[in-house]
Amino acid sequence: MLSEIKKENSEELKAYLESRNEEISSDIIVTVSKILEDVRKRKDEAVIAYTEKFDGIRLENYCVSEAEIDEAASHCDPFFMESMQKAKKNIEFFHNAQKQNGYLLQKEKGIYLGQRVLPLDSVGIYVPGGRAQYPSSVLMNAIPAKVAGVKRIVMITPPSKEGSLHPNIAYAAKLAGIDEIYKVGGAQGIGALAYGTQTLPPVDKIVGPGNIFVAAAKKLVFGKVDIDMIAGPSEILVVADENANPAYVASDLLSQAEHDPMASAILLTTSVSLLDAVNEELRKQTDVLPKKAIVEESMKHYGKAIVCDSIEECVNIANQIAPEHLELMVEDPMAYLGLVRHAGSVFMGYYTCESIGDYFGGTNHVLPTSGTARFSSALSVDSFIKKSSFLHYTKEAVDAYGSYIVEMGEQEDLQAHANAVKVRLK
Amino acid sequence: MLSEIKKENSEELKAYLESRNEEISSDIIVTVSKILEDVRKRKDEAVIAYTEKFDGIRLENYCVSEAEIDEAASHCDPFFMESMQKAKKNIEFFHNAQKQNGYLLQKEKGIYLGQRVLPLDSVGIYVPGGRAQYPSSVLMNAIPAKVAGVKRIVMITPPSKEGSLHPNIAYAAKLAGIDEIYKVGGAQGIGALAYGTQTLPPVDKIVGPGNIFVAAAKKLVFGKVDIDMIAGPSEILVVADENANPAYVASDLLSQAEHDPMASAILLTTSVSLLDAVNEELRKQTDVLPKKAIVEESMKHYGKAIVCDSIEECVNIANQIAPEHLELMVEDPMAYLGLVRHAGSVFMGYYTCESIGDYFGGTNHVLPTSGTARFSSALSVDSFIKKSSFLHYTKEAVDAYGSYIVEMGEQEDLQAHANAVKVRLK
Repeated sequence: MLSEIKKENSEELKAYLESRNEEISSDIIVTVSKILEDVRKRKDEAVIAYTEKFDGIRLENYCVSEAEIDEAASHCDPFFMESMQKAKKNIEFFHNAQKQNGYLLQKEKGIYLGQRVLPLDSVGIYVPGGRAQYPSSVLMNAIPAKVAGVKRIVMITPPSKEGSLHPNIAYAAKLAGIDEIYKVGGAQGIGALAYGTQTLPPVDKIVGPGNIFVAAAKKLVFGKVDIDMIAGPSEILVVADENANPAYVASDLLSQAEHDPMASAILLTTSVSLLDAVNEELRKQTDVLPKKAIVEESMKHYGKAIVCDSIEECVNIANQIAPEHLELMVEDPMAYLGLVRHAGSVFMGYYTCESIGDYFGGTNHVLPTSGTARFSSALSVDSFIKKSSFLHYTKEAVDAYGSYIVEMGEQEDLQAHANAVKVRLK
Repeated sequence: MLSEIKKENSEELKAYLESRNEEISSDIIVTVSKILEDVRKRKDEAVIAYTEKFDGIRLENYCVSEAEIDEAASHCDPFFMESMQKAKKNIEFFHNAQKQNGYLLQKEKGIYLGQRVLPLDSVGIYVPGGRAQYPSSVLMNAIPAKVAGVKRIVMITPPSKEGSLHPNIAYAAKLAGIDEIYKVGGAQGIGALAYGTQTLPPVDKIVGPGNIFVAAAKKLVFGKVDIDMIAGPSEILVVADENANPAYVASDLLSQAEHDPMASAILLTTSVSLLDAVNEELRKQTDVLPKKAIVEESMKHYGKAIVCDSIEECVNIANQIAPEHLELMVEDPMAYLGLVRHAGSVFMGYYTCESIGDYFGGTNHVLPTSGTARFSSALSVDSFIKKSSFLHYTKEAVDAYGSYIVEMGEQEDLQAHANAVKVRLK
């Protein structure tokens, strides 16, 4: 059941949602720092010891062989594999359009300048283990890196107690074209990716979700390597008009709520009767869900609704909140897309439930949370490239423009900057 | 004088350079946290009090009027203003080519999906005060934001003891089209930008260099707002062949060394006699520099040279180090640019000294330091946009592909994700 709040209080709702962001405690920081330091120094020896301690298995060799990957993947459901193949094609189709070119500009006096677009050399993807396994996340993290042209894509994942790899994860890794897999998780896994070990050469960037220890480790190694964003609790905001089907609205809100007791599900609508019907549907649909307890907890704290005067007003409030997922369940969604300034990903019309995008449609499901869509973007090909500029001046060009550069250097009291031009003017 | 190291030790050189990155001490973190918390709570009252404490002047109103900006800018040297105008044109010319478009892809069964490119709503630029003033940095930070389409660009800078604005900074702000200026610096300035005060509405992203307190404050507000990179000490790496002019090479190394005792200046060359001649020039040129003490300190610790067998080998070592600035002082620089995989910005040929790019050529001078060019890029139009995806499925498309999505949801044990599709298949 959604608790209704007044539209005048939308600013408070925003602050309330942002307050879910969990601070990493200093205890965790200290614990994780020690693990990282130990992995940096003792490399394999430390990795093997921490895996034994935290995952309950001693793996003298944590590099996964091709035979082991094939064996694990052979246990997958054929229809699951077919679904993943189709999803992969759609994800590639969407991300191929994100490839960028460099440019070269030419000017008078032999001046030229430009920018090159280069893929990162190597990337590490963290894939959580434990009970939950998300093969879709392997595709969402690996495919953009592949499209960007990254030559070496490494996956790490904690081993099960038996030291095995989940079949779905093994299949996803094969399908995505991952080059190396290592059975190591937690802070020790992040340390191995950042600093390298005898077994695992270091990478330049680490992406992928993990628990609080993994998040802390990623924050701590940032600077040595790049990282993706640290995601907060997941969130959906549905804007619905009076013609939206309440069963659809309810199912979409619940699909977010099942992730996490901290997940939020917000409905903005112009219709009081829709709101009532959605609440009725929520009751019915929640009852039969396997994750009913999580859903109820999440909806109790973070299931909210606001009734607005117009769809424009709904979209304005959505912009304030800058949700990770925004559904426009309205008659003509294209008429409103242009008003959306802040949203990670937008799901258009009555039939595009968020789970289509989570798995299959092609857009990326790694999205900015907690209002950060105001200034950040989904994981994309951009996340795996960098740009490098270049500039060429001839003697003639230095003769023509050198005095301006000397003036600017001297005004900033940087005489050696000015001198570098002066020696060339002689 | 450059101390020569063996090419076999280039990995150690890399580690040595990276060790310059200064850790922010926990004392500073605690001090800065308190200031930020105070600004968040007491807003203007706190800002005014900290300005009085740290900058030695009580400013009841720290918003700068247009008249005050005009008055300050009227004291600028006319040739300086002309130089800045020409630099602005070049910077715009380079950055205009970075504008990106969104895309729309259409598929069977009424499916469409795509990505929109949107400017950030608002940006704050930190401009350091004190003795040093860098009007060129105002252009380098503001112009890409302007080109990106950011509607509100705010500048903050600590006031002088008399409460005034430096003429060159005032002129640069006018020229760059900055919308609002506030006389506030330090951690309190970063707090005001991130949380907002009665005088200064908050922004979405904070860019620009500052001292260690500013850097700590930026790290702490990251997440609430976006920030640019925290820059480490500046660095130049010159690759020079036997035809390079030693006076030019020396002047370029010195232009980096004058920034900071921690700045590094590295020469990679195929010619022992060039190295000797550069060392001779360094002695001569250093002697007459106003910042001689800084230069000597920097060269003593971080002035290094490696003699290589070929220019290819020089470039390979440069890739290992991933320098902020790379000069290719060789006969045919275009022949080697394609081998450069990791460099913030590349200066091509004998005449393109780094200071041309620092001030005038058009490429951005806010560049990745400390080896982070391996995975990050210069400040650019990209720094002031975000991307938002969208996806549309029709009933027909859900009917055709829904079973794949249900399968993927169920394999991940996310029944509510599968349900959102199932209710639409009924």
